[in-house]
Formats: sequence, C-alpha cells, structure tokens
Amino acid sequence: MATLQAIKYNDGQLEILDQLLLPESCTFIPIFNVEDAWAAIREMKVRGAPAIAIVGCLSLAAELRKLAAPDTKEELCRLVKEKLDYLVTSRPTAVNTQLAAEACVKLCTQLTANASVDVAEAKDAVVKSLEATLADDMADNLAIGEHGASAIMKKTATKDKIRILTHCNTGSLATAGYGTALGVIRSLHKASKLDQVYCTETRPYNQGSRLTAFELVYEKIPATLVCDSMAAAAMKQFKIDAVIVGADRVAANGDTANKIGTYQLAVLAKSHDVLFYVAAPFSSIDFQIPNGQSIPIEERPHSEMTHTGSIRTAAAGINCWNPGFDVTPAELITGGIITEKGVFKPDQLAPPQ
Amino acid sequence: MATLQAIKYNDGQLEILDQLLLPESCTFIPIFNVEDAWAAIREMKVRGAPAIAIVGCLSLAAELRKLAAPDTKEELCRLVKEKLDYLVTSRPTAVNTQLAAEACVKLCTQLTANASVDVAEAKDAVVKSLEATLADDMADNLAIGEHGASAIMKKTATKDKIRILTHCNTGSLATAGYGTALGVIRSLHKASKLDQVYCTETRPYNQGSRLTAFELVYEKIPATLVCDSMAAAAMKQFKIDAVIVGADRVAANGDTANKIGTYQLAVLAKSHDVLFYVAAPFSSIDFQIPNGQSIPIEERPHSEMTHTGSIRTAAAGINCWNPGFDVTPAELITGGIITEKGVFKPDQLAPPQ
Repeated sequence: MATLQAIKYNDGQLEILDQLLLPESCTFIPIFNVEDAWAAIREMKVRGAPAIAIVGCLSLAAELRKLAAPDTKEELCRLVKEKLDYLVTSRPTAVNTQLAAEACVKLCTQLTANASVDVAEAKDAVVKSLEATLADDMADNLAIGEHGASAIMKKTATKDKIRILTHCNTGSLATAGYGTALGVIRSLHKASKLDQVYCTETRPYNQGSRLTAFELVYEKIPATLVCDSMAAAAMKQFKIDAVIVGADRVAANGDTANKIGTYQLAVLAKSHDVLFYVAAPFSSIDFQIPNGQSIPIEERPHSEMTHTGSIRTAAAGINCWNPGFDVTPAELITGGIITEKGVFKPDQLAPPQ
Repeated sequence: MATLQAIKYNDGQLEILDQLLLPESCTFIPIFNVEDAWAAIREMKVRGAPAIAIVGCLSLAAELRKLAAPDTKEELCRLVKEKLDYLVTSRPTAVNTQLAAEACVKLCTQLTANASVDVAEAKDAVVKSLEATLADDMADNLAIGEHGASAIMKKTATKDKIRILTHCNTGSLATAGYGTALGVIRSLHKASKLDQVYCTETRPYNQGSRLTAFELVYEKIPATLVCDSMAAAAMKQFKIDAVIVGADRVAANGDTANKIGTYQLAVLAKSHDVLFYVAAPFSSIDFQIPNGQSIPIEERPHSEMTHTGSIRTAAAGINCWNPGFDVTPAELITGGIITEKGVFKPDQLAPPQ
C-alpha cells in the first residue's frame, strides 16, 4: 500500500491535505502564496513542525516562480527575507521554519556576494533550494525510521514483539511523508517487531484520534486508540515497551518542547520503567537555546477545549488553560533522541561542525 | 447562591437532572420505577457512585409507594430483593448500590422475623429507609467537606491560599448534593482558602468539562479547565498543592477504583510532591475485597471515544480501549481517604464495629 502523502508539489503547483476535515473527508486545497500558507498553518489545516516548514518553503517557491525576477539581487534578498519572517510568525514554538528561513537567507546573501550569478539565476537557485526541502525531509524521515527501529530492536532483543505508545501525530500528515516518531513505528512494523501501537487522542485537537489513527488504519498497522488519561493504565496493563514522540524544538541540553501532554507521558514512562524516545530531524535541535526554559510556549484559543465543531463540550463561562506544548526535561528522555544522523543521549548532542 | 440540586424527591415523585443534556440544557426527567432508574443509570443520565445508589433507592421507594402491600412479608422481601439485584447490574464498578441493596434486604429480613410488624408496616418501613438515603448522603457530604477542608488547611497552614486539582465530577451532580471531592473544594472556598481549582476534562465522557465546570461556574468558585494531558504541566507551572478525587470503590487496603485517569494523576502527584486525597462516603469502602485487583473494571462503548454527538472525532476503523475506571494503589494516596467519619491513611481503614 502506498504511504499517505499530504503535501503535493509539482512545478510550482502546491496542494495540501486539509487536516481539519479529517477523518470525515480527504480533501486537498491549493496554496498559491505565503499568505495562503500562513493562514493554513495558523488554522492548523497543516500541522507538525517539519510539515509547517516545508509548506512554508514550498509556498514561497510557488510564489517566486510566478514573479518576474526583481531588478537586483539585494531586492530579491529583501523580498525573500520579508516573506520568510512573516511565515515564521505563523506558529512560534517549532524551530524548523525559522531554521529553514535562516538557511535560505544565508543562501541569498551568498548569491548576492557572488558576482558571477545574475538575479534570474539567483532566483532559480533560491526556488530550487526551497523545493528541495520536500525530498530532503522524506530522506531524513526514512533514516530516522531505520535508526530508531534498530536502536529499539537492540534494546528489546529478548522479545519477539513489542508494544509502543505514541502521542499526537508525527506521521505522513506532519512531515513530507513517512514521519518521525510514526516513521520509527512504521519501520518496526516493517521489521515484524510490532505487536501493537497505542496512540493517544491528544486533546484538545485530537491529532491522535483524527490523524494518527487515520494513518495507522490506512496502512493496517495494529493499533489501539486510548484517551490521554489512560496512558498510565495502558503502560501497566499492556506492559508497553517504549514511548516514542516527536519534537517541535529540542534545546542544546536535550530538553524537548512537544505537544502538550508529552511531559506527563515522560514522567509516567519513567515511573513505569518504560523507555522514552524523541524522534525528530536534526534540524529540530536548536543549539542557540541552552535549555527548555527559553522555548516559547504558544497558548491556543479556549474554543479548542470548549467546543467540538458546533457542539459545546464545556460549561459556558468556564476559564480554560490551553498551552499548545510543554517541555520534557532531558533526564526523562531515557531512550534517546532519534535523528537522521543516529540516536543520541541528550547529553551527547553537539552542533554540526 | 443555592447549591445545585440534581435529584428531586417529594412524596414518591422522583425527578433527576438529565446530565447528558448538560451543559447545553438543564432539563429534569421523571423516574417512575426501577426500570426507568436502571436505564437512566446505564445511559449515564445520572452518574457518580453515590447518586446512582440514591436514584436506585428512590426509584424503588417511588414504585413501592404506588403498589398495594403484597400478601406476605416474605413476598415483599422477594420483590424488594429482586428489584435491588436488578438495579445493581446497571453499573458494576461502584459498590454503593450493592451496599444499599444489602442494607435494605437485611432490614426486610429483620422486619419479616419481627412478628409485631404487619406487611403494610414493613412496606412503609422499607420505603422510609430507601427515602432516607437522600438526606443521609447530603449530611455525609457536608461532613466529608468539613473533615477534608480542615485536614488540608492544617497541612497547608503556612499558605494564604492553595490550588487544588480535581478529576471527573464528584459534586452536586454525582451525589445527593454538595459532593465528595468537590464538597471538600466547596468547603475550602467557603473558608476563603482556595486560590484556584483546576478541573480536568475527564475524557472520554467529559464529566469535568461538562459537569464539574458547570457546578464551579454556577457557584462562582475560581476555576480553570485543563485537558487530561495537561495535569503534570499544570502541577509544575501552577504549583498545585493537592489533588482531590472521588472513589467508586475503595478496597480494604485502601486501593481505590475511580474514574479512568485517576491512577495517572496519583503517579504525577507523587512525582511532583503534591498531596493526593480520595474523598468518599465510608460506604464506598468495601471491606469484603482485600485489594484493588479484585475490583471489576467496566469497559465502556467505543463510541464514547470515536464520536462527540454526531461528530466523528476518531478515524473510522480504529480499535479503542475504553475502561471506565482504573485502580490507584493505596501507597499513592499520600494525603489520605476523606470520609464522613474523618480522614484516614489507607492503612488505618477498619470496618465499623
């Protein structure tokens, strides 16, 4: 069976699967420019740190393709930087868009300094580098899957099959394809090592029940949905072997910001002697920030908690606290941080030389 | 402001607030007999261990009032026992209905053995004892509130105000009125000791967001709704002082069956150095069972997890695990078990002499 593909890009035509309509309907919507991308990211039609960055980059590539080349390379640089800065504001917690933006601005600066490149060539080079984010992320995810699965299989070598718990959505719907934490689970399934994966609902936005469950059913991976409140009971009753989650941003010391609820899964995993892994592209590691205290945590609208569609699920007038993310301290990441470059203990992280 | 009253009984007329319609609508429905009560309990129009037992008892009282006295006291006994056995089958986890049934059957047997009582007098005595459950529970809850609040205020004497986290609904909507865990919170609020109460959504049935939030807004108690996945983040960020939950059944050693999610709150409380209390009428303690392993755990329909009203919130075809309850080991109940007879450490529980 083909793996689910949620971001489609061909020759400057970008379409994304509208995740707000899942699981009821599988509908693709066109993204013509960075304004469309910003709105789709903010409205969560696309979510997941890698997917957000890719859709942002591809939306700029699509827009640049349609534009005549500016008069000067400086003007091109200014335009690109302005659009990227705007895209970064769509969701503040994940670092991926910011890193992609920095890399692109750096490329612009290099091209501007290079007298042998004219403005049209510079524009083409920027477009190509933005477009490459899709294939690069796919390749990274396949590598994450392989590294993660082999590390976990080594740790559980005495067992025929294992049980994994995961949170939120980190699969084809959150990345260019295959996924990070869910990529590791796909690789474990391919290796016939997976007995069952337990996915949490992931309130209040139900990324687990709507999206992860959708991917697992789609690819016939043996799976069971649990409520967020059932994680500890499931660890105890089903003797779960490992928890694998994604990351929106990893600090230099390994502290990890991820979907709200991740921190408590890590606490529960520790107290049940269950391995806890973070799976993310190396670009999610932000060596600029020393630890998790400096990661900004987005607060999201109360309506996510008080309503499901038009149905009110909370009493009128109740105050809500709706942080989108929390920070898991490095010492709770007992399994390690799985990247395309290998699996690292939090204290082994080092910036690329 | 008057406390919310969800069970109304006058001269054999029983009405209950249909909790399935909350928070959208506040509608009372009549209960004419034990069949009506059984269906209302099964459909969760009324829930909460004490409320279930009271509605069961009052439905039988209402039915008996309308019946002509049977020919013999033996026949009365048989009839009462049959109806009570049937009521016990409506929800298997809570012990309250079973204990109320046993007490009523014992009374029937005593009345039958007492030659000075005729069958009409026996019927009246049974009706009166069934009707007394409402006022008795209310008195118990007020005592639970006082004992709990004073124990917690003693433990937190150095603080001006405290923050409490609670789970599920244990208030006026789960009891005859005032509540158990929520009764303690009401008493803390009355004593001006409460800074804020955090109530969990309590998935999948949203008893926290629909019912507890409704009561807290109704009585203007300062409150914030959090998702079940946010409990640990809230404990850390808001420095919560104590978790207080109810109980469906407490084993002789203090192990406590309560709404799914309670166990993990207890684990999280322990790891965050937060006091953990269970509040329940003494009748919730089942000295017949030595520990939590013997408490039957009801599994509930998958549709509770896959749909909110008519809206599908989980991918079609996904398998679900939906236990209604979990068991919290006694050693995690660090604060104690608050009853109308006082606050007990789990290892101090002893059957009434």
